[in-house]
Amino acid sequence: MVGPANDFTAPPRRLRLGMVGGGQGAFIGAVHRLAARMDNRYDLVAGALSSRPDVARASAAECFIAPDRAYDDFREMAMREAAREDGIEVCAIVTPNNLHFPAAMAMLDAGIHVICDKPLCMSVAEGEQLAAKIEETGLLFALTHNYTAYPMVREARDMVRSGKLGNIRLVQVEYPQGWLATPVDNKQASWRADPAKAGPGGALGDIGTHAHNLADFVTGLEISELCADLSSMVEGRQLDDNVQILLRYKNGARGMLWASQVAVGHENGLKLRVYGDKGSIEWAQEHPNHMHFRPLNGQPRLMTRGGPGNSAAGGRVRVPSGHVEGYLEGFATLYTDFADQLSARIDGHLPNAEAGLVPGIAEGLNGMRFIEAVVSSSQRGASWTSM
Amino acid sequence: MVGPANDFTAPPRRLRLGMVGGGQGAFIGAVHRLAARMDNRYDLVAGALSSRPDVARASAAECFIAPDRAYDDFREMAMREAAREDGIEVCAIVTPNNLHFPAAMAMLDAGIHVICDKPLCMSVAEGEQLAAKIEETGLLFALTHNYTAYPMVREARDMVRSGKLGNIRLVQVEYPQGWLATPVDNKQASWRADPAKAGPGGALGDIGTHAHNLADFVTGLEISELCADLSSMVEGRQLDDNVQILLRYKNGARGMLWASQVAVGHENGLKLRVYGDKGSIEWAQEHPNHMHFRPLNGQPRLMTRGGPGNSAAGGRVRVPSGHVEGYLEGFATLYTDFADQLSARIDGHLPNAEAGLVPGIAEGLNGMRFIEAVVSSSQRGASWTSM
Amino acid sequence: MVGPANDFTAPPRRLRLGMVGGGQGAFIGAVHRLAARMDNRYDLVAGALSSRPDVARASAAECFIAPDRAYDDFREMAMREAAREDGIEVCAIVTPNNLHFPAAMAMLDAGIHVICDKPLCMSVAEGEQLAAKIEETGLLFALTHNYTAYPMVREARDMVRSGKLGNIRLVQVEYPQGWLATPVDNKQASWRADPAKAGPGGALGDIGTHAHNLADFVTGLEISELCADLSSMVEGRQLDDNVQILLRYKNGARGMLWASQVAVGHENGLKLRVYGDKGSIEWAQEHPNHMHFRPLNGQPRLMTRGGPGNSAAGGRVRVPSGHVEGYLEGFATLYTDFADQLSARIDGHLPNAEAGLVPGIAEGLNGMRFIEAVVSSSQRGASWTSM
Amino acid sequence: MVGPANDFTAPPRRLRLGMVGGGQGAFIGAVHRLAARMDNRYDLVAGALSSRPDVARASAAECFIAPDRAYDDFREMAMREAAREDGIEVCAIVTPNNLHFPAAMAMLDAGIHVICDKPLCMSVAEGEQLAAKIEETGLLFALTHNYTAYPMVREARDMVRSGKLGNIRLVQVEYPQGWLATPVDNKQASWRADPAKAGPGGALGDIGTHAHNLADFVTGLEISELCADLSSMVEGRQLDDNVQILLRYKNGARGMLWASQVAVGHENGLKLRVYGDKGSIEWAQEHPNHMHFRPLNGQPRLMTRGGPGNSAAGGRVRVPSGHVEGYLEGFATLYTDFADQLSARIDGHLPNAEAGLVPGIAEGLNGMRFIEAVVSSSQRGASWTSM
Repeated sequence: MVGPANDFTAPPRRLRLGMVGGGQGAFIGAVHRLAARMDNRYDLVAGALSSRPDVARASAAECFIAPDRAYDDFREMAMREAAREDGIEVCAIVTPNNLHFPAAMAMLDAGIHVICDKPLCMSVAEGEQLAAKIEETGLLFALTHNYTAYPMVREARDMVRSGKLGNIRLVQVEYPQGWLATPVDNKQASWRADPAKAGPGGALGDIGTHAHNLADFVTGLEISELCADLSSMVEGRQLDDNVQILLRYKNGARGMLWASQVAVGHENGLKLRVYGDKGSIEWAQEHPNHMHFRPLNGQPRLMTRGGPGNSAAGGRVRVPSGHVEGYLEGFATLYTDFADQLSARIDGHLPNAEAGLVPGIAEGLNGMRFIEAVVSSSQRGASWTSM
Repeated sequence: MVGPANDFTAPPRRLRLGMVGGGQGAFIGAVHRLAARMDNRYDLVAGALSSRPDVARASAAECFIAPDRAYDDFREMAMREAAREDGIEVCAIVTPNNLHFPAAMAMLDAGIHVICDKPLCMSVAEGEQLAAKIEETGLLFALTHNYTAYPMVREARDMVRSGKLGNIRLVQVEYPQGWLATPVDNKQASWRADPAKAGPGGALGDIGTHAHNLADFVTGLEISELCADLSSMVEGRQLDDNVQILLRYKNGARGMLWASQVAVGHENGLKLRVYGDKGSIEWAQEHPNHMHFRPLNGQPRLMTRGGPGNSAAGGRVRVPSGHVEGYLEGFATLYTDFADQLSARIDGHLPNAEAGLVPGIAEGLNGMRFIEAVVSSSQRGASWTSM
Repeated sequence: MVGPANDFTAPPRRLRLGMVGGGQGAFIGAVHRLAARMDNRYDLVAGALSSRPDVARASAAECFIAPDRAYDDFREMAMREAAREDGIEVCAIVTPNNLHFPAAMAMLDAGIHVICDKPLCMSVAEGEQLAAKIEETGLLFALTHNYTAYPMVREARDMVRSGKLGNIRLVQVEYPQGWLATPVDNKQASWRADPAKAGPGGALGDIGTHAHNLADFVTGLEISELCADLSSMVEGRQLDDNVQILLRYKNGARGMLWASQVAVGHENGLKLRVYGDKGSIEWAQEHPNHMHFRPLNGQPRLMTRGGPGNSAAGGRVRVPSGHVEGYLEGFATLYTDFADQLSARIDGHLPNAEAGLVPGIAEGLNGMRFIEAVVSSSQRGASWTSM
Repeated sequence: MVGPANDFTAPPRRLRLGMVGGGQGAFIGAVHRLAARMDNRYDLVAGALSSRPDVARASAAECFIAPDRAYDDFREMAMREAAREDGIEVCAIVTPNNLHFPAAMAMLDAGIHVICDKPLCMSVAEGEQLAAKIEETGLLFALTHNYTAYPMVREARDMVRSGKLGNIRLVQVEYPQGWLATPVDNKQASWRADPAKAGPGGALGDIGTHAHNLADFVTGLEISELCADLSSMVEGRQLDDNVQILLRYKNGARGMLWASQVAVGHENGLKLRVYGDKGSIEWAQEHPNHMHFRPLNGQPRLMTRGGPGNSAAGGRVRVPSGHVEGYLEGFATLYTDFADQLSARIDGHLPNAEAGLVPGIAEGLNGMRFIEAVVSSSQRGASWTSM
């Protein structure tokens, strides 16, 4: 084994975590739980894992949640936990999209910090209400745009910010998947294809928002207008399964965004390329520990997670370079950074720099504005639309 | 050394070839000459390699062209060669774009077959005149869209045509380069940036047409309309150096095309991805002997030039699989296939199947229509434009 | 998010885990703790994390171990935990190599199951004593050859066993690293270079054993003899930093093994290639979710973790294909599979199939025999040596 | 199209070339002819392409060789061509290995320069006779170890020579192929498996010599001793089809060489890795335009043919970076460099630097010594053998 070890510092106690959604048969809830557990910063002590009482009970038992803290109604959980001395301090929301808003509002109203899966909610209007509530309560809010927590993505952001690429001219981002190339009928697929649960975007909301957020996180560029062509390639599908967008940024840069769930042969092909006048970078989610940096007139360089030449931004690693950290580690980093924010808040000290990288309400609201602009553009014949 | 050898059959004599352009300091002329020489099907016996008499003479001498067949005026060459018993049968045109049309017309008028570099000419109007002339004279015409001659590209075309990908839904094609990311002042760069010599497109004409042609060649899909955003990223540049296009095809498929000469870090990153409802393919010019085929619900497969599972379409190879054939071999294949067409015409027999794959006037005219539609779309605020 | 979710089933309670070694500044101890935590199957409740009392205490506190169960002597821990009603059931040993044997013996003598880092111990003689003790006590023993738990490695093993590669003819395995290319003086480097702590092998014991074990796990072939050339490339280094071995297997197959810590530019380049008369596979640790399968006369296929065509062996995954699982997930899988073994033993039922894949005393003893044969061969001028 | 063009300077006339071997059905002869033609430095004017008169005649006609210069006996060709005013100046020998020696001797005796395919001949004894004859006659001799002419291989050599890698410690070279994994019965396979035609090595002579020569060319290190294990994996095969060797170099470096023709799934997997104490390089024949350079403690760099940071050594290119040059271009470079040597000799001036890189009799003799040492080592139970 080689090199530097995990330097995560351990605080004196774990944070008390609740969860809404994520009962038996769910996918992302298990990911959140594992992410919360990885760096030992949280104890999952309460849950409204399902609205069906039996599923809620059985699911809670599997998570070692005490029976009296296994709820089937998130509003009840918010109230009763808020009333306990040892009640949850923070709650993860991992339901289908349509419940993000009411669950988050319930927690915030009860004085409980929130970790919310993406996209933020169902509309800009909901998002603005949430933002107002957060401002009013002063509570902390994390949105799990997990790809932002990969070390090389943070390194990419740092490279852009520190000018290593020069002025940014071009952004090419794509997220092709193939799993919906044919009609699919299972729990994961069906809620994503139902506008009442998923919101106005299909592939757009599910993965287009990841692509948008990733480009936004790394470049910090603001979109001025976009031209979007949404398609539904599989007969009978109500929402889009293919997203193609031209982007214009306020600084004059241009961009293209492609997200698809009918791109046969792709698994999770999220890839970002950013080109400045001094250099470019390329990062692909399926090989997340590597990033290609191509300086103007120089030899392309391979940057590796934890490897030579990284800044502090790329330094939040658990195992040395050459051993892969993946999806779950990135997810866990969001949880751990947010734990730092929470601990700092609770203890009255300043959080570390990484803690500030966790996406929050601003990113969530920006995502909702993106979704609405894209849908609007596409509905008007793929015409240019301000954002 | 392994496997099957070159199976190019040798005809009884070489064809007499002339050339317009390609004198000292030129790039593409040397490529054409090498391509003509590779499979020993042509003798370069005459040339108007430059309009400057001294350069024309010196360049011809370097090519072992007899002094009396070294011209400095292509019209004179056309006339005098046509009058010789042993005059040129076919002429390669390798000038800047603005001379393609007059040089080709001069040759056709003199009864000489033509091999023309791309793009075809300066406008649809010129292209239509050329097409009429070709029809009128019955002469043969090749356009060196060289990427179509890579074995794996022909294999890709065959896979689409034979239904291995099912109905085509998505086309993603890109051609990023970085060599014009800063102001460049040399012979190759300057004529490409001059509308009087290059025509209405910069990156568009130079490499956008390659991307368009490649997608067209492989898929055979017709574009119904497009939405194009041309940019010029380097101050003072008259023509576009970045091309971003959304495509809609007549069959309902969608596409995206990106071509750029300011994409720092790329050399010749031409890449095509085609997605059908039964499978997808991916081919990249910088590793041209490989192609990825991803069948629906199956394991992705690596197809190699000359390797297992290729059809006859991918079988035109000089060396066995595992030894790379590249840019020059592809170029030479166009010359050799066109030699087959020419020999068949001269001898009155039918050419082989590959000969029919050489791009010609139809592809050239299609390219000009593409350029004009793109420029028109972009000038009207990147609005949707029929093609 | 796409596809099938984590299907790890949760048992009714967590196992009580202790740890020897892994105090502040250690690397692999933190990895073991994280691995134990990932799937929520263990509670770390006691530890002799250091022999220095202050470090032991502080380290335990960081792990939320109760002060009365923070020991500085593993023998004392074994005795006192064995005497408690709620004492540890299983203990992880994560010390330098020289303490593996005494710590494991102490735990086994106290009736505590053992999870031991690799290599097993310092000699075949120690290994045989351990094996005898394990047989005598009937306790369970896991050796964390973690690379065996990557899903694609288990898939590879299954492919060999099920005959997909035919008769195995060739094994090429390598593990290049570069971190010791110059004299290195830190905690991780120094004990590995000290024969008193590391044993008779340097790179050999540290990573050569991983390469050996990986080939052994996947192919199941027995080495008949080997010819090994150990070198020390950096002046003043007492143990080997480069290992080159020719292998002959009992079935007539041939192999080559290379392990190096002076291979500048490599991080953890463990790679295995196995060639049979019907096909071959290639797997590289730095891209562990992919494996290349090349059937005789067929197109090479890309196999992905959780992707199409995998057997049940490759199916133990937490997140769907296309999202990377890495080093920590593999490590955690060993812990979880061993938890299944332990739970089954405690509850008196049969463990599942994967549980049986966890390397144990046989693999450890085989590793010690390998080390001794290699050292012996090298010392006798790199002559052929039976194993 | 981008960048610098072909800068090969054209001399005033072409050299008169003859050929022995390479008639219809042969593979490598066609490659030599194409290579000679590519840069327009040779005219093929005579040939003893086969010892069967009808095949010799028909093959010559296909090559546009005049009937009176189509021979069926290479000794006759040597005599008669030497007697002509316009006789051949240089002769390519492309027969099976057993005829290299007599054909080369015949040409040298007739005062004709020689280009010989590899391996040099059948034994060290033959090689020494050839060397003596070359010295005696003062004629020029090229051995077509074609991989040495890839631009990135020459760049690699330059990097080693100029100290960019520091002191060389490790050499890992391999050449796996799969085409003889089953019994194969065709012209190419059968002579290679016949000791009377191929010499004492099977895979060893065919591709092991390429691997050896490549490492030798790049590193310049001398082997002091080697330990070789030759195997024949396919029943009934007389010669080795798998070669595994440990190498010790005079400077203390270590190496491993693997060549195989039963490595199912490989096409022409020649790969060289060289590790010094300041950096390492990796080059793979199947992607020959790329090379990986990994400086000590720095980010790995991608070097591309014609791309940034190359020395003059890597600068002999026909097309700009990003367009692939492959196997035939490398072969042609040997011919062109040798043409420079020949022209310089004929004209009495000094050749350019690249001309000196063409492998010759010294490399050929070194290859024969390698073959004999390997066979000797393997026959004595794979024991260490001096070279």
